[in-house]
Amino acid sequence: MADHSEAPVTPVEAFEPPYYVAVFTTVRTQDQSGYSETAARMEDLVKDVPGFLGMDHAQTPGGLGITVGYFRDAEALTEWRADPEHRAAQQRGQAQWYETYTLHVAKVERSSGFTRAQRPGPC
Amino acid sequence: MADHSEAPVTPVEAFEPPYYVAVFTTVRTQDQSGYSETAARMEDLVKDVPGFLGMDHAQTPGGLGITVGYFRDAEALTEWRADPEHRAAQQRGQAQWYETYTLHVAKVERSSGFTRAQRPGPC
Repeated sequence: MADHSEAPVTPVEAFEPPYYVAVFTTVRTQDQSGYSETAARMEDLVKDVPGFLGMDHAQTPGGLGITVGYFRDAEALTEWRADPEHRAAQQRGQAQWYETYTLHVAKVERSSGFTRAQRPGPC
Repeated sequence: MADHSEAPVTPVEAFEPPYYVAVFTTVRTQDQSGYSETAARMEDLVKDVPGFLGMDHAQTPGGLGITVGYFRDAEALTEWRADPEHRAAQQRGQAQWYETYTLHVAKVERSSGFTRAQRPGPC
């Protein structure tokens, strides 16, 4: 479960709506051979899609995984969906890596963010 | 990080669009006292909101947390947003539990799911 470990630990920011989210929730199988390499390749590949804004990923050990992709518009999602390498990875995911998954594609209407203010040190 | 551990390990299903997702991505602080109890209470409370459809949660140890709430319509989200206990929990979250978070509220346009077929045993 070392995949995605290079990602900085900060969530993708709130963009100005409208934009799109693709919420991908998964439960994995026991057989994860090749998964990490493919996930890393997909992370690289999606960055080339015009309109790709970012990606968040969280994985409960032995439990649920959630990946959220952020895209400027529906066209960006369509392009990513049609990518041949991505399609091949999806097929291998169904054949090998995923016990079950759900995908929700949605248009963002409202967004907000919070970041803790730095506390002044003692003086 | 034992919170949410009672949830069954299966993602929320794909509903018939349109419906709403609230995607909440977080990085937590060191001080998590009281968090688990409040998270459990919020999970109970949101179930009473008419139009609440379900919730997914994943937490990378020491990393990103993602919670996705699913709601039938914008009114359900408005009601949950206005809940006094929920608002108090949000305030405590900003004061204590969260280093940073982002919220994306979006209307689902497309959804799909996959569940692995049971393989027949040897015979």
